[in-house]
Amino acid sequence: MTAKIVTLTTDFGLKDPYVAAMKATILGISPRVAIVDITHDLEKFNVRAGAFVLGSVAPYFPEGTVHVAVVDPGVGTQRRPIAIETKHSFFVGPDNGLLILPAEAQGIKHIYELTSRRFMSSNVSSTFHGRDIFAPAAAHLVNGTGIEEFGPQLTNVVKPEFSKVVRSKNFLIGEVLHVDDFGNIITNIRAKDIAEFREGMLLVELPNHKVQVKVSRAYADSKPQEPLALVGSHNYMEIALNQGSAAAKFGSKAGDRITLSTA
Amino acid sequence: MTAKIVTLTTDFGLKDPYVAAMKATILGISPRVAIVDITHDLEKFNVRAGAFVLGSVAPYFPEGTVHVAVVDPGVGTQRRPIAIETKHSFFVGPDNGLLILPAEAQGIKHIYELTSRRFMSSNVSSTFHGRDIFAPAAAHLVNGTGIEEFGPQLTNVVKPEFSKVVRSKNFLIGEVLHVDDFGNIITNIRAKDIAEFREGMLLVELPNHKVQVKVSRAYADSKPQEPLALVGSHNYMEIALNQGSAAAKFGSKAGDRITLSTA
Amino acid sequence: MTAKIVTLTTDFGLKDPYVAAMKATILGISPRVAIVDITHDLEKFNVRAGAFVLGSVAPYFPEGTVHVAVVDPGVGTQRRPIAIETKHSFFVGPDNGLLILPAEAQGIKHIYELTSRRFMSSNVSSTFHGRDIFAPAAAHLVNGTGIEEFGPQLTNVVKPEFSKVVRSKNFLIGEVLHVDDFGNIITNIRAKDIAEFREGMLLVELPNHKVQVKVSRAYADSKPQEPLALVGSHNYMEIALNQGSAAAKFGSKAGDRITLSTA
Repeated sequence: MTAKIVTLTTDFGLKDPYVAAMKATILGISPRVAIVDITHDLEKFNVRAGAFVLGSVAPYFPEGTVHVAVVDPGVGTQRRPIAIETKHSFFVGPDNGLLILPAEAQGIKHIYELTSRRFMSSNVSSTFHGRDIFAPAAAHLVNGTGIEEFGPQLTNVVKPEFSKVVRSKNFLIGEVLHVDDFGNIITNIRAKDIAEFREGMLLVELPNHKVQVKVSRAYADSKPQEPLALVGSHNYMEIALNQGSAAAKFGSKAGDRITLSTA
Repeated sequence: MTAKIVTLTTDFGLKDPYVAAMKATILGISPRVAIVDITHDLEKFNVRAGAFVLGSVAPYFPEGTVHVAVVDPGVGTQRRPIAIETKHSFFVGPDNGLLILPAEAQGIKHIYELTSRRFMSSNVSSTFHGRDIFAPAAAHLVNGTGIEEFGPQLTNVVKPEFSKVVRSKNFLIGEVLHVDDFGNIITNIRAKDIAEFREGMLLVELPNHKVQVKVSRAYADSKPQEPLALVGSHNYMEIALNQGSAAAKFGSKAGDRITLSTA
Repeated sequence: MTAKIVTLTTDFGLKDPYVAAMKATILGISPRVAIVDITHDLEKFNVRAGAFVLGSVAPYFPEGTVHVAVVDPGVGTQRRPIAIETKHSFFVGPDNGLLILPAEAQGIKHIYELTSRRFMSSNVSSTFHGRDIFAPAAAHLVNGTGIEEFGPQLTNVVKPEFSKVVRSKNFLIGEVLHVDDFGNIITNIRAKDIAEFREGMLLVELPNHKVQVKVSRAYADSKPQEPLALVGSHNYMEIALNQGSAAAKFGSKAGDRITLSTA
């Protein structure tokens, strides 16, 4: 028995009825599903932030969960609507790179284009595929429709430019992926990337700051307002202030370059 | 078998426990109901925005859904609490115009005043009818209580001043209904109102701007940051920027006058 | 038959996947539970605001509800994770004072430390006990696991400094507990504290304002923008403006001193 869960990740915000329209459509097709909001407050049109946020939480959902993500600047153009089946769950959304990172982390089994009108709303608008294509597809997947019924299988899809970490003997250059609501600066640097850095102090260079930080296990290992580096629960290294906003202090934002070296 | 769904539309925000108090009350009476938030971030006391948002999403919900809306500057005064049954669903809230537009669009069958104490919380506060009157009424409706058991039938209720579109041979004057979270300027002008305007360019006059816009089918039909007009998925004409905020660019807000003519 | 409801109260915000990670964990253990958000927009690290918000809404939930609250500046340190059973429901969270006020109001039966690894996620991070300890504990409680199976019983827990009201013959000194999203200034002064003040006018002193307010039953008892005092639905006295923000007008914030006397 698989889970009957649909998650939603969008840049729609919560002021407008767009998210509710997706939920209405899902519940009309699959009345007993549990719908879980991941976030609707992604920066508008920021596909990478969506991929990061969805990818960091998808592993915690039960097997068979259907993840719908919509950050979709190309809605109404030729970009394709797709569904991906992985070894663990399903991903539904636009073919613009948004779904690939989270899906690849689970092992992709196959990808299909959503072309069958049977599984769309009766009127498909050109502005709101979240409601008219993605929500119904998710609900039908939860109801047990096979993914191969939705349209043709795809072998090549849009891959996002991966944010690579550059390594040398003495330093490591990465990038800020996301600034969370606590002001923690989440980078694309993984635990394994910094294994060889001695515990103790790191020298961190951000665009306008050069700062020594303590490698820590918990926020509270440092004094209040003191900067620290730790590998967060999402498995990426973050720069944080105990009980403060590191992003506000250092003026950091997604896309900033970050350089690490031994202090 | 009708849906067991209650939706909530309020100006309560999400910082405070008011929305959760309504949900607690509903679940105490009807434990298996699915509760869907439409929005709680309506501009405070803006009854028209509430009517627009609820009206634009209500059609997508399954038959039998109970919509509770609370934008209620007159709570604790003589304004009446009401429930409306339409051909499609139910609406519960204050008699201040909030419910009429969405309900009329579905065809109103009858309207009742909520007076029976049997279907209210045991202590009815004078400040929070959302929790004490509207939430319990919605839960009892979902449980199958007939609408005629809640109180006397009403024949006249408060009607909102409709925002009319003024037409002449050469131009059309409407009004900004709502600015959505993407900065799209949603007007009260419908697809049918602009049918006779040639596809191509429109001249749009807003309070401080006069601008030519392209009539488009999708946001991405224009270049980034270029203004366009399209009929959104809610069936109203909106002025938008592809990948930008039209409202920020033109300084628009709800209530602004908008004039269209052929460019 | 007890309710199968878990509520969540945190300072995590809704931009990040933290709340969804908790929900994923809960649904993985207890698939049929209804999860209700109380708020995730508490001021960061403000334990008192969390206690106020949770305490004001917990009484409205059905018997057997499990309330999870996470405002947790000490995560990863020696502060203990706890679960409390009251005469009405359960509370799960950090032992930092957050749970005690809401739990005491319901009558505490017993308190247990959460130490058993059987009821935690397989990898417990040092930064996110909400997902790894509190969410699984709540899901197992909902599933019927006895609270005594989670770890040793506790007899002394961290008690928050209560915010006391100072009374004399002619005045009463309290404190601002919370400013709600309408700008209502909610104080720690209860209905019973002001019973002897004559209905009519009160003199209210806030840090930078001295103002006469009318004791009212409903916001709409005053003219728009006129200040008033009323006992809100949460049972605390609040200073409000009819259709306006009292907090903006008087520059009030949580922690401010407030003095009442007869006008």
